[in-house]
Amino acid sequence: MRIQSLIKDAQLGLLFQQGTFGLEKESQRIDRKGNIVTTAHPSVFGNRSDHPYIQTDFAESQLELITPPTKSLEDAYRWLSAIHEVVLRSLPEEEFISPLSMPVGLPPEADIQEAQFDDPKDVEYRQYLSKSYGKYKQMVSGIHYNYQISDEFIENLFNLQNEYSSLKEFQNALYMKLANNFLRYQWILLYLLAATPTVELQYFMRNGVNHSPLKEKQLVRSLRSSPYGYVNALDIVVNHDSLNEYVNSLEQLVSSGRLIAEKEFYSNVRLRGGKKARELLENGVKYAEFRLFDLNPFEPYGISLQDAKFIHHFLLFMLWIDETSGQKAVEIGKNKLYQVALENPCAETQFRNEGEQILTALIEMLKEIGVNQNEIVYAQTKLAQFANPMETINGKLIQAIQQIGSDKQLAIKLSQSYKQRAFERFYAISAFDNMELSTQALLFDLIQQGIQVELLDENDQFLALKFGEHLEYVKNGNMTSHDQYISPLIMENKVVTKKVLAKAGFNVPKSVEFTQLNQAIEHYPLFEGKAVVIKPKSTNYGLGITIFQQGVNDREDFAQALEIAFREDKEVMVEDYLVGTEYRFFVLGDQTLAVLLRVPANVIGDGIHSVRELVEIKNNDSLRGDGSRSPLKKIALGDIELLQLKEQGLTPDSIPVLNQNVQLRANSNISTGGDSIDMTDEMHESYKQLAVGIAKAMGAKVCGVDLIIPDLTQPAEPTLSSWGVIEANFNPMMMMHIFPYQGKSRRLTKHIIRMLFPEIV
Amino acid sequence: MRIQSLIKDAQLGLLFQQGTFGLEKESQRIDRKGNIVTTAHPSVFGNRSDHPYIQTDFAESQLELITPPTKSLEDAYRWLSAIHEVVLRSLPEEEFISPLSMPVGLPPEADIQEAQFDDPKDVEYRQYLSKSYGKYKQMVSGIHYNYQISDEFIENLFNLQNEYSSLKEFQNALYMKLANNFLRYQWILLYLLAATPTVELQYFMRNGVNHSPLKEKQLVRSLRSSPYGYVNALDIVVNHDSLNEYVNSLEQLVSSGRLIAEKEFYSNVRLRGGKKARELLENGVKYAEFRLFDLNPFEPYGISLQDAKFIHHFLLFMLWIDETSGQKAVEIGKNKLYQVALENPCAETQFRNEGEQILTALIEMLKEIGVNQNEIVYAQTKLAQFANPMETINGKLIQAIQQIGSDKQLAIKLSQSYKQRAFERFYAISAFDNMELSTQALLFDLIQQGIQVELLDENDQFLALKFGEHLEYVKNGNMTSHDQYISPLIMENKVVTKKVLAKAGFNVPKSVEFTQLNQAIEHYPLFEGKAVVIKPKSTNYGLGITIFQQGVNDREDFAQALEIAFREDKEVMVEDYLVGTEYRFFVLGDQTLAVLLRVPANVIGDGIHSVRELVEIKNNDSLRGDGSRSPLKKIALGDIELLQLKEQGLTPDSIPVLNQNVQLRANSNISTGGDSIDMTDEMHESYKQLAVGIAKAMGAKVCGVDLIIPDLTQPAEPTLSSWGVIEANFNPMMMMHIFPYQGKSRRLTKHIIRMLFPEIV
Repeated sequence: MRIQSLIKDAQLGLLFQQGTFGLEKESQRIDRKGNIVTTAHPSVFGNRSDHPYIQTDFAESQLELITPPTKSLEDAYRWLSAIHEVVLRSLPEEEFISPLSMPVGLPPEADIQEAQFDDPKDVEYRQYLSKSYGKYKQMVSGIHYNYQISDEFIENLFNLQNEYSSLKEFQNALYMKLANNFLRYQWILLYLLAATPTVELQYFMRNGVNHSPLKEKQLVRSLRSSPYGYVNALDIVVNHDSLNEYVNSLEQLVSSGRLIAEKEFYSNVRLRGGKKARELLENGVKYAEFRLFDLNPFEPYGISLQDAKFIHHFLLFMLWIDETSGQKAVEIGKNKLYQVALENPCAETQFRNEGEQILTALIEMLKEIGVNQNEIVYAQTKLAQFANPMETINGKLIQAIQQIGSDKQLAIKLSQSYKQRAFERFYAISAFDNMELSTQALLFDLIQQGIQVELLDENDQFLALKFGEHLEYVKNGNMTSHDQYISPLIMENKVVTKKVLAKAGFNVPKSVEFTQLNQAIEHYPLFEGKAVVIKPKSTNYGLGITIFQQGVNDREDFAQALEIAFREDKEVMVEDYLVGTEYRFFVLGDQTLAVLLRVPANVIGDGIHSVRELVEIKNNDSLRGDGSRSPLKKIALGDIELLQLKEQGLTPDSIPVLNQNVQLRANSNISTGGDSIDMTDEMHESYKQLAVGIAKAMGAKVCGVDLIIPDLTQPAEPTLSSWGVIEANFNPMMMMHIFPYQGKSRRLTKHIIRMLFPEIV
Repeated sequence: MRIQSLIKDAQLGLLFQQGTFGLEKESQRIDRKGNIVTTAHPSVFGNRSDHPYIQTDFAESQLELITPPTKSLEDAYRWLSAIHEVVLRSLPEEEFISPLSMPVGLPPEADIQEAQFDDPKDVEYRQYLSKSYGKYKQMVSGIHYNYQISDEFIENLFNLQNEYSSLKEFQNALYMKLANNFLRYQWILLYLLAATPTVELQYFMRNGVNHSPLKEKQLVRSLRSSPYGYVNALDIVVNHDSLNEYVNSLEQLVSSGRLIAEKEFYSNVRLRGGKKARELLENGVKYAEFRLFDLNPFEPYGISLQDAKFIHHFLLFMLWIDETSGQKAVEIGKNKLYQVALENPCAETQFRNEGEQILTALIEMLKEIGVNQNEIVYAQTKLAQFANPMETINGKLIQAIQQIGSDKQLAIKLSQSYKQRAFERFYAISAFDNMELSTQALLFDLIQQGIQVELLDENDQFLALKFGEHLEYVKNGNMTSHDQYISPLIMENKVVTKKVLAKAGFNVPKSVEFTQLNQAIEHYPLFEGKAVVIKPKSTNYGLGITIFQQGVNDREDFAQALEIAFREDKEVMVEDYLVGTEYRFFVLGDQTLAVLLRVPANVIGDGIHSVRELVEIKNNDSLRGDGSRSPLKKIALGDIELLQLKEQGLTPDSIPVLNQNVQLRANSNISTGGDSIDMTDEMHESYKQLAVGIAKAMGAKVCGVDLIIPDLTQPAEPTLSSWGVIEANFNPMMMMHIFPYQGKSRRLTKHIIRMLFPEIV
């Protein structure tokens, strides 16, 4: 099967590079001393049987993290990162993820529990493996790499060739070529990417006796891929001459009892497309799974994006070359793999020549199909590693172990630093930091609870969620099917909001609307002496609002405020001013889940530090940043803040006395450095019920209600002097409640999930 | 009770002018020959018992049109206009509304049917009236004017005075003053506004005998307000000295059997605030109803806005003057009324002096409280009418009757011209033409079917609807509580829409999205030779879209199209182009209610007229206008159209041959003069079902689905060559279906109402 010339002639290089990718990464949970834990798989991850992201492999301690299929490796890698951050932040404080493929700190075999799946067959199979291979071998971890060739590429290619008359057969042949050539040349990737040169003695211990086949201190390239790793007996042979023979010989091994099931065939390539191999013949191969790869301990997620791309290029090359390996070549390849696996990793490989030839040709291909220059450079550094074995991951790992003393010491050091790293911006999902923090918080909970997420549009914060057959869509963290369309439309319009709420009997400040400046000014006598707020009908963020807290007593002032408001909108409201404190109520359905007080940017004096220093200290809070990539915003010392200081007779260099409250802003917005203070438990229940009623009156399920309340400890009375509603907000901010400056965190995203998927308990 | 100085001192002039207003207008349905009809109240108006706008008064033929309470007379008047347009367009072709208070074309008494209400008591009461007064007297029509003094004004005034210690008593006293002074001076309004100088002889006929008290050809100022009109016997006296005595004496009249019920007391002022008069004492008077006014036949709605305002000013003056009439003065006023009613309308009134004094003082008040200059001028013209009786409405009416020959002839002429006028822009509600046509269409149906409408925000097309206790909100004609919030968010985003629809198994054209121009251009090889559409992700109205219908064969063209698209959005899609015709499906719930084909602006040659003339002829269609205040837009002959003509080798002066289709635009938008053609009945059912499924997949109840279909007569197949969905729209346009250029009208607004209020059958 020759496709190289077809790709060149038809300019299919771009299409050739497209594909679908997925990564499955196994690893052991270890404790602070580097020992594999014997605790159960954390229940916070829900039911593992259906969990799309967080599973267990052989042992209860052995996490398997799975990325969803994605159209690019970049995306697969982002998912791998996100799932890691979720897992690391969810593990008990004293648990970590081992960065090594070979197990460290192995407990006595009896203490290793097979993963406790719901289905007894899943557990039985693992118990069978324990008996057949011993538990320790099953504790070895690695990365599985799933690759699906682009359908469109296959179709295009099929139309250009004339060897095959059926698309399905062509597709199967293509995958067979990929698999066989990979098995023939896999030793090259092993040489470059292996990272299991050694293992703790315990791995070879049986009943107190050392069964190690290695000499003391002997290092190898890959224990995991060697006969001492997690591999089938050498006499388990499946014929790769054709897909037909592959299926027949695999079935023969199972029916003769040599394998308990097809999945016990641990080939470094598995062809995927059905539960049984025979289905591949009927349905065609859908994708291939490559299982060769050791964890790269220097990468927090076990593999670097560059290596993932390099593997992709290697796979492309396996398709690109004209030859297709048959069973004979596959056997050659497997033999080479075993030989390379047991080579001295600090020395050159015996097959250096072949390796360099293949990589040189691979680099030629990369140029031919128009791959990015820096990826070509990366392939060249890989090529150079044939001359410098110590430059491979293995080489670096051996040095690192020697430096620190043992595998275990390295595992302890790296696993702890990776966990610490995952907490640096604990409120974010780093890989999806292009999305809003609230969507990131939701994503965290979705990944943790095992709800399938599809990112329909990241820029637009649009997600599709699936649990079983139940599909839901979410935009901006809390805009869902549970709200009526009319509700946000009501809330968008302040005049309509007030009319709707007044109609439903809630306290709203009285107001008059004007559409003409002159007409509004002429109504001055109606408002003279009254405390009023003048505001545009629809704009937000406080633009164009003037407050006459002490009453408007000058017609000129009144006219000017109107003019400012009319700049923002064609309609302006003159509203009675309510006395009291403004609180934000976050309502979901029948419940007020959180109440927040927003306090203008400020610092509290300690009699020692200057205002400037106090601001700096306050800004050191890890929650404070630019305000979009962080829950709170750093306090600035700009013109507005300086003016505010001046009004208090202060400069940035003044040293306020102990407990002196220094105001840096008049407005309470979080976006200008304000503090968010959770008041949920302090707020009298009656106001929470009011907020629920207000949301209901507008048909809203999720709603941010702003109430003015003079005394939050007194029960609500029916009059405006007790409370008044000044605004209701759809798509209310969640981060300020989830990560407040002060007070309890309210994990609203979990409630959103419960609303969408009440079937999850 | 002196309030004049309080208003002056506290600058309450503006507040004094505020109030709540309502108009109730009775009138007879007549036929083309001017005879009162004997047909039933049209069933299209639904159940009259609960109808807020369209009722019957005494007789089945006697319409009573009621405006909802409004804060301004302008608004009351707009409602009066709107209700009239609805009624006139809903009446049978051969029925009209008589413009005269006095009945014309009276049928034999036996043929007059009392209004057939559901409640037998309502019918019985009318039968009692027939017996007591004779049916003919009950056939007289007029306008009732409801006026509520501003609560805020009353409160302000109450706080300034020290005569009354209870707000309720103060309020009652204020209304009592208003009522009594009105009764004292009502003759002035009668002189100025009366319009019943004469009546057909039949009115006085009983069993073939003429009982007329008038001399032949004798004219009076107001038959209706004279003892020969619709009034109580002269000895029915209710004491107006105080509210207490008023209630007691009224109850006495009923308990003694002189009146069958309180409502039989036909005072020209009724105090309102409860079902029984006694409730006024307990709850306070809420508003007053003034029943003095004859229909002004020269006004399509029976009263001019200027006169309505003048009446308001007269009422204000009744409050303004220092005196408060007692029962004695009320009797004087009633006597003067009767005297003036029977005066010769062509001569000066005997009370001219008093009239001029009062109006002069009224004009002073208007100046004092800051009323608009043109309203002061209007009051001055009224004042001048004391010197020129022929300038009053009566004077003009007498001349008009003399000119045309009879009351009946005048009624025929005016009623027909008013009906014709109501059809001029039959697709609009003239008084609410500031709103979108679709909202106007909805309003039409709501008024017709008797659903209470509150205009929450006209600029925002926001309505509150109420039927019984059932409340619904509607924005822009079809945005309601029945749609999920997430649906429009999905539809707003073309990428998300496609993913959602593809997920649900619908045919969507394949597409690739790009966020960077260079990256997109580099993908040229993927699209070379293919028919594609390049478009921005989110913008509408066709901006930034390029179609390569014949395949893109030049990298430069491709790059340029991308550049144009990137000007409109940060994300651009390259989408497969679908071959076929685009149809708009209007889906509501489980049904496709309408299918529309939009055809680019065009004219069809007749071998006689030039293109310019053909355009002019086509533009004469009453549906064509500016496109926002009309369902279709006039075809322009601008640069784009000239270019389009040029491509066909034509100029505006060319004369196309018979049946030559001359294209004036390439795009099919209605907004550029395109034709809308209803295809609902032609479209194969299978596509209608698909459109319903597509709407459902997005959780939408109301949805405009755009399908590309090569052959609408063939059933839908599962492949893209049979059909494809290219867009789904929330808040889809309704007018193009309701008033299409060609084909059946689809009254979608009625379906929206049925969706919101399924309880209405």
